[in-house]
Amino acid sequence: MRIITVSREFGSGGRELGKRVADLLGYDYYDSEIISAVAKNSGLDAAYVETALDNHGWHDFPVTFGGTMHSVAYMQSSKIDLLIQQKKVIEGIAALGKNCVIIGRNADAILKDYHPFSIFVCADVDAKIRRCRERARAEEHLTDRELVRKMKEIDKARSRTRDFLTGSEWGQCESYHLTVNTGDWDMKKLAAAVAAFAESWFETQS
Amino acid sequence: MRIITVSREFGSGGRELGKRVADLLGYDYYDSEIISAVAKNSGLDAAYVETALDNHGWHDFPVTFGGTMHSVAYMQSSKIDLLIQQKKVIEGIAALGKNCVIIGRNADAILKDYHPFSIFVCADVDAKIRRCRERARAEEHLTDRELVRKMKEIDKARSRTRDFLTGSEWGQCESYHLTVNTGDWDMKKLAAAVAAFAESWFETQS
Repeated sequence: MRIITVSREFGSGGRELGKRVADLLGYDYYDSEIISAVAKNSGLDAAYVETALDNHGWHDFPVTFGGTMHSVAYMQSSKIDLLIQQKKVIEGIAALGKNCVIIGRNADAILKDYHPFSIFVCADVDAKIRRCRERARAEEHLTDRELVRKMKEIDKARSRTRDFLTGSEWGQCESYHLTVNTGDWDMKKLAAAVAAFAESWFETQS
Repeated sequence: MRIITVSREFGSGGRELGKRVADLLGYDYYDSEIISAVAKNSGLDAAYVETALDNHGWHDFPVTFGGTMHSVAYMQSSKIDLLIQQKKVIEGIAALGKNCVIIGRNADAILKDYHPFSIFVCADVDAKIRRCRERARAEEHLTDRELVRKMKEIDKARSRTRDFLTGSEWGQCESYHLTVNTGDWDMKKLAAAVAAFAESWFETQS
């Protein structure tokens, strides 16, 4: 079984890249399907689950120590529950034994015993802004400055959640097999190049 | 003309990867040749030039400000001179108009107008230690701990020099087209995969 995981910066196009790679290789593709399964298993509404998991879920709690104000971060227990549910869903996907691409959700760390090929997708800030503008949905009303702040917040949440769950650093090249910058590419051709690269890697593993 | 630049963490195998990619694609390869050319142009000894360029060349100068000790970093002027010489040599290589692979030396930033395909090569600390042990030359007598300290020092020097020269961040995925982790690969097969990836990119550019 071959598993490809795609971690990505917000706005980098990692989701589109992952979908295209899955289509090219004929792999199953998991993204929002994971949210639906978590919702189903937990009896919660899918929209709530998505917001709760996307939300950073961290709170800074002020403490005074040695006369100075410090801050302690803790994660909401409701988010921890959902992360555990999500982990189970991802393990269930792997247990199906079929080749697949999984978007985000630290699937590379959760499934490390399956030795997945892990990709991180990034892009320059300008390219990410352009991409968000093209897709404009929720971000439609934001200025560039607000959009950059939103990107940073989402990426920071992803980073903290990864650190909390896996101890491996989000976005650091050592944490992935391949890191690609979507900036200077045609997405279709990039997907073909990434798919070929991943296949070469799988061949060396067997 | 196609130029591939290879930046790398110390011990990651970036140099070997670059050499193999050059051989596979039939490109010219530049590494220590650059040092020889700088030595020739400056009338200095090649061993001195290599040490001076490899050396971080930064000094921390203590200053007292508002009753507190701070530190100001400055770069030795002799290193700045050599970096300028090196830049000229790299521009000279590009002016030859032939396909080539250039190792390190911020060639991607120096030659950005030529639109090179830029690679960053990394690996886990353990893999880098193993690699250094296999090659064992100057590092032969070092303990693992000393070796890791040496790696960090060299990488920090590369990072500071890049920042000083280019304003683009060393080792950050946004600064390169492709970032590869050599850890889980056979180097020969990785080189073939990287060469194919680079060729796909060049095809989308023309």
